[in-house]
Amino acid sequence: MKRILTGDRTTGKLHLGHYVGSLQNRVKLQDEYDTFIILADIQALTTHFEQPELINKGIYDVAIDNLSVGLDPNKVTIFLQSKISAIAELTVFYSMLVSVNSLRHNPTIKTEAKQYGYDDLSYGFLGYPVSQTADITFCNADLVPVGEDQIPHIELGRKIVRRFNDLYGNGRVIIKEPQALISETPRLIGMDGNSKMGKSLGNAIYLSDTVEEVNKKVKSAVTDKNRISVKDKGNPEICTISKYHKAFNHEEYNNICEMCKNASIGCVACKNDLSKKINQLLEPFRERRAYYEENIKEVRDIILTGSQKANMIGNETVDVIKKAMSIHI
Amino acid sequence: MKRILTGDRTTGKLHLGHYVGSLQNRVKLQDEYDTFIILADIQALTTHFEQPELINKGIYDVAIDNLSVGLDPNKVTIFLQSKISAIAELTVFYSMLVSVNSLRHNPTIKTEAKQYGYDDLSYGFLGYPVSQTADITFCNADLVPVGEDQIPHIELGRKIVRRFNDLYGNGRVIIKEPQALISETPRLIGMDGNSKMGKSLGNAIYLSDTVEEVNKKVKSAVTDKNRISVKDKGNPEICTISKYHKAFNHEEYNNICEMCKNASIGCVACKNDLSKKINQLLEPFRERRAYYEENIKEVRDIILTGSQKANMIGNETVDVIKKAMSIHI
Ligand code: SF4
Ligand code: SF4
Repeated sequence: MKRILTGDRTTGKLHLGHYVGSLQNRVKLQDEYDTFIILADIQALTTHFEQPELINKGIYDVAIDNLSVGLDPNKVTIFLQSKISAIAELTVFYSMLVSVNSLRHNPTIKTEAKQYGYDDLSYGFLGYPVSQTADITFCNADLVPVGEDQIPHIELGRKIVRRFNDLYGNGRVIIKEPQALISETPRLIGMDGNSKMGKSLGNAIYLSDTVEEVNKKVKSAVTDKNRISVKDKGNPEICTISKYHKAFNHEEYNNICEMCKNASIGCVACKNDLSKKINQLLEPFRERRAYYEENIKEVRDIILTGSQKANMIGNETVDVIKKAMSIHI
Repeated sequence: MKRILTGDRTTGKLHLGHYVGSLQNRVKLQDEYDTFIILADIQALTTHFEQPELINKGIYDVAIDNLSVGLDPNKVTIFLQSKISAIAELTVFYSMLVSVNSLRHNPTIKTEAKQYGYDDLSYGFLGYPVSQTADITFCNADLVPVGEDQIPHIELGRKIVRRFNDLYGNGRVIIKEPQALISETPRLIGMDGNSKMGKSLGNAIYLSDTVEEVNKKVKSAVTDKNRISVKDKGNPEICTISKYHKAFNHEEYNNICEMCKNASIGCVACKNDLSKKINQLLEPFRERRAYYEENIKEVRDIILTGSQKANMIGNETVDVIKKAMSIHI
């Protein structure tokens, strides 16, 4: 079985955007691949170092979110980034193999720095593609499921790995060059139509939302503003709800668009349909969540067991790498 | 006993410049301080990542150099930087607390980058004051013996530590703020009069040099070039040999300068005097070196035992730091 490395920053609970964008795919992949899921608390620090308590809470939030959608702890390895010293050690080694300029001119870093409003980057933030390369390679992952926007990071990581192998491999491959597993993951927009979704924007439906929260959020979602009365024909192209139907009610999507354009369905009914669909999706998640929240010690054990396994693999990788570099006595 | 952290990059054997500049002082300090000596192989990588075999050889060279000058493995802790995962982990944490700009504008980094002819710095090289802060703080060192030129690094380290304590200490000190222990260490010039000394310049007397090598190097040293005949009066101010007399034959230094100015000593005799003095200094070092070279396994054990001790301390520090940051489950 090939190994994949995937995961989430532990900055807070996950929402439907995360589900559509990666969790859904992750659940499918767990049967085909040896799946490693990183709870990226150190990476969360690069942007949230002033709110460590949030990161700590996020560890459990994200772990439970992953478990609730159906990732099976008997199949996947869920581990805590900060528990894997090999990742820090590889980060330090890789730091020698990448220039400051190549990081500063990395388009993704630039965009993300702008997103966070940074003009004076921290050293750690600038280096996060380096530590991401360590995340991927410490466990010799073959594949990394990513969206298109993450490809430059994977490319930089592959460059670092190639440089390492060229320098220290003596013709042999010491570190596996990871491949991007690109999935066409539709980006979900926020309930308010904003293309970004998140806690600070208050426009996301969380995997942990109750039936009532889902209903309320869907009810207040932005639709085609020109459609004032039920008799007005609607334009699903500019309606948030239709985008959600596409994602969560795909079979009826075309039908709903037609009805909207014909004014044969009202927005209230259309929204009710969607709420029902989302709640149907979330129902089994809620059951698993309830179980894990009652058995939080089990969640802790899953993370600790996964981290122990990841640590063993990581320490082996560090040994192999040090030997290749003649950094050993 | 207060703890000091000192050490050397493992890029090759140490010379008289290292002895005068730090080892001599280190030997004195070992009775007053709990001395930790880092064999900085990772830091050596920042500049020598293309010559790892040299770094590996350097580990033993530097360890034996330290032992040969009289550092007592029963008093001091000699450890290998790459064996201490806590240093890598602290480096990653500290990376969040220092901006790229403050590193880029650091005068010492600038000077050193120029020295190595870098115009495109590696990410690791730019961050070496960050990892140096990790070297110092992983073992809660109180003091770092440094020359004046290293003060900006220590200051940056103190700033990182203060930032950490401010952010995560809740009024308490989590990490000790290290102090510089500034020693007036005369910088020794090279045998050729060059202000830099090193292997590539071929102008250094090594602690491991034989009697014959010392004699030969002193014989070919640059003196006052205007003094052609023994009858010419000399100018010790512009003579390399006089500088070495000052460092290694301090009692007779004034006398020799007088005799040189009066032409009452010839350069050959003056050089012979110096060779004798240097060989007298090196003689006990050679005896210890011979012992350790015959018992190389003992050197390895000293490094491994020291690294084990350092590791235990480092892991405790990481635990304390993670707890303070709420990065734990
Ligand atoms: S009927 Fe549905 S798709 Fe059409 S505007 Fe209303 S909510 Fe949007
Ligand atoms: S006598 Fe000694 S100090 Fe004077 S020039 Fe000769 S070597 Fe130098």
